[in-house]
Amino acid sequence: MPASLAIEAIFPQLETLFGERLSVNAGVRETHGRGEGSTASEPPDAVVFPTSTDEVSQLAKLCHGASVPLIPFGAGTSLEGHVAAPLGGISIDFSRMNAIEAVHAEDLDAVVQPGVTRKHLNTHLRDTGLFFPVDPGADATIGGMCATRASGTSTVRYGSMKDNVLAMEVVLADGRVVKTGNRARKSAAGYDLTRLMIGSEGTLGIITSVTVKLHGIPETVTAAVCPFPTIENAVDCVIAAVQMGVPMARMELMDAVAMSAVNAYSKLDYAEAPTLFLEFEGAPASVTEQVETLKTLAKDLGGSDFQWADKPEDRNRLWAARHNMYYAGLALRPGAQALTTDVCVPISNLADCIGRTHKALDESPLTGLILGHVGDGNFHTLLLFDPDNPNEHAEAERLNTAIVNQALALDGTCTGEHGVGQGKTKYLRQELGVEAVDVMIQLKSALDPTNILNPGKVIPRN
Amino acid sequence: MPASLAIEAIFPQLETLFGERLSVNAGVRETHGRGEGSTASEPPDAVVFPTSTDEVSQLAKLCHGASVPLIPFGAGTSLEGHVAAPLGGISIDFSRMNAIEAVHAEDLDAVVQPGVTRKHLNTHLRDTGLFFPVDPGADATIGGMCATRASGTSTVRYGSMKDNVLAMEVVLADGRVVKTGNRARKSAAGYDLTRLMIGSEGTLGIITSVTVKLHGIPETVTAAVCPFPTIENAVDCVIAAVQMGVPMARMELMDAVAMSAVNAYSKLDYAEAPTLFLEFEGAPASVTEQVETLKTLAKDLGGSDFQWADKPEDRNRLWAARHNMYYAGLALRPGAQALTTDVCVPISNLADCIGRTHKALDESPLTGLILGHVGDGNFHTLLLFDPDNPNEHAEAERLNTAIVNQALALDGTCTGEHGVGQGKTKYLRQELGVEAVDVMIQLKSALDPTNILNPGKVIPRN
Repeated sequence: MPASLAIEAIFPQLETLFGERLSVNAGVRETHGRGEGSTASEPPDAVVFPTSTDEVSQLAKLCHGASVPLIPFGAGTSLEGHVAAPLGGISIDFSRMNAIEAVHAEDLDAVVQPGVTRKHLNTHLRDTGLFFPVDPGADATIGGMCATRASGTSTVRYGSMKDNVLAMEVVLADGRVVKTGNRARKSAAGYDLTRLMIGSEGTLGIITSVTVKLHGIPETVTAAVCPFPTIENAVDCVIAAVQMGVPMARMELMDAVAMSAVNAYSKLDYAEAPTLFLEFEGAPASVTEQVETLKTLAKDLGGSDFQWADKPEDRNRLWAARHNMYYAGLALRPGAQALTTDVCVPISNLADCIGRTHKALDESPLTGLILGHVGDGNFHTLLLFDPDNPNEHAEAERLNTAIVNQALALDGTCTGEHGVGQGKTKYLRQELGVEAVDVMIQLKSALDPTNILNPGKVIPRN
Repeated sequence: MPASLAIEAIFPQLETLFGERLSVNAGVRETHGRGEGSTASEPPDAVVFPTSTDEVSQLAKLCHGASVPLIPFGAGTSLEGHVAAPLGGISIDFSRMNAIEAVHAEDLDAVVQPGVTRKHLNTHLRDTGLFFPVDPGADATIGGMCATRASGTSTVRYGSMKDNVLAMEVVLADGRVVKTGNRARKSAAGYDLTRLMIGSEGTLGIITSVTVKLHGIPETVTAAVCPFPTIENAVDCVIAAVQMGVPMARMELMDAVAMSAVNAYSKLDYAEAPTLFLEFEGAPASVTEQVETLKTLAKDLGGSDFQWADKPEDRNRLWAARHNMYYAGLALRPGAQALTTDVCVPISNLADCIGRTHKALDESPLTGLILGHVGDGNFHTLLLFDPDNPNEHAEAERLNTAIVNQALALDGTCTGEHGVGQGKTKYLRQELGVEAVDVMIQLKSALDPTNILNPGKVIPRN
């Protein structure tokens, strides 16, 4: 029975459960069937807006019995088709589960509902002297960030979502509500259900509460932008800093094309050369020490024209330019869409991997640019193509596959932070082996035997 | 069929596979059936000493078909009966799989066989300027530390095994060999099989290779010992440092009884008062800054008599005294055994939890002492009892349960780092709920349907 028929059978119960918070409006379904990636919308049959864990649990019980797919929806900023409904079903929009339930400032943790966005959380925390560090750029929800194992510009210092969640509450496919941990900073009490759920993209359970780690806002923060003569020199500067253990807060790379896009989009006048965006933080003497070390490393590699941003408003402008990179890239070619790669390799292979990617871009008719969280070995290539031109789309896909193949050959991963979604299931066996994917299928079958939780994501279809 | 009969059926194949590396010697079996805890040995039927992943895989296939239990054995330093064979079967001693297969200094990682101990690894790394930070005190194997999600004195700075492993190779119950990840510093490629295996105590798979993260040896390291007027003051000093985000390398607490044990055992003359053992590290100016901050915090809480250890040999002596605490505690009462608790609570509840534990100790006829990784909220109580006196053993168990109940009531865990083993299965449902344990049982059934992998550990028997 297709989902659209299956959902009809439970529609009266859905109406009773959600009332006006159930929508089958075409526009609502359309916007819930796509994220920010280049793939077309695959709308769900309906969208619900729960307000409690209990409602999500009742919904799961209903859909489990009727074999109706359930697709969690946070802020819709995924780039890999996570929120699409290729088999129909019900999109669960968490925008009304956006309460910050507790802030334990003394323990450096907070308990939030999954629909809280990272900016909302940080605004709420402002007076506590604490902050939540994971920053994927977009104002994603904490639930979505858990589901995709998000990371970003601050990961080189603070780690990814895997490192910044103490516990979750999760609704299973059959409606059972599971607590994966507690507020202790560490535990050896059984299997790590928290980490099993983080990065499972809604295919093993539906996240309904998250206990996140918080960190003290550093006493001193300063940021800088520094151009380099070549991309290799910029990368080598980052590698040296990582290897020396300089506790950098952020180390971001943009290539010359990316810098020209940033200048045009954000009305700035940075040098249009390979450039590092850097942030230093800590106690004052430590920051001074870090800055001196970085200056020395950069100078040896031809990078000496540092532009500093000490004041919060200057730093915000600098990082806004970096965070708007996706939109700045799109603006290079009005009407174009972007296919975004997300490979991550061991840092000693990074210059090689970026070099080969640049060469592939030079040889392609498409415009592309490179930016990356190079302290982690992770970089993105934005490949701009005309969505109405099948040849261009095919060329973007060809480049994407070539870049993934390079990264896998260099002991890397096809996705550092965007997740598998639908687009990368085809690379999983190549990356991890048949046996590892078989284990993932066994875990999925054990926890969601009727495959109602976000079907078509993570697990390859054959 | 009991394991002892089942193993007879496959004995000829075992002899072919392992030759002289198969032992049924009573003494060998006895030592492989117990760790360092207070429980009696439960010897396996045989012990094998594999030299390759392929041998482990063949062994698993053989035992899977014959339903013979397999119990991985590292250095035998577990305190929770992890290596015991309550249902008989075969102990897999990894002492001959102790090769360091690769050190990627540029990438800050190393690939090691599971029988490599942490001290062996760090000795090997000495000339690279890098080190492996996780330090549970005992010279445990990397495989065993993965299996129990070990942590220790340096966790407040570097995290636990969960945070310091990039990937593993694991043999499943049926002999399949799975690669859980690769050398990329981060990945969002599917379920986190690495973290699923870490802390699974050999019940989901047998670890045959580990890719660990390495860190640069800090430029400057200094350590200090500082007594406080009360245990609450010492704990408050730690809490303040954590909340201020001082990047301390180690923050360890010992109570007055522990300090007298240390003085007697290690021939030292520290004040016999609640004491913090501290370590500071980083670039020189940063260390100076951290030291000044800690001195100010400590002074306000009555702690000003710092004894410093700047030279490596002095620091080694200081930390050797801390690491020998278990043996120093045992030496307080010759012939006694120790039951060691391992609770971990949110740090704002730590002073309360330790205070109640002290009160319980004061009211008990048994001698006990407290030491702990207080920066993480984790502390141990060593409860000394006469193993030949059932009343004393029962009293130690009663105190253990009371301390666990306190910790769980304070949103903590029954085990911060020692693991569940056999001793703590009874607390799992109380700590995480029936549903979470049901999920663990589902995962175990999916990956090890005939329950041959370390049976009787982690999963409650009923």
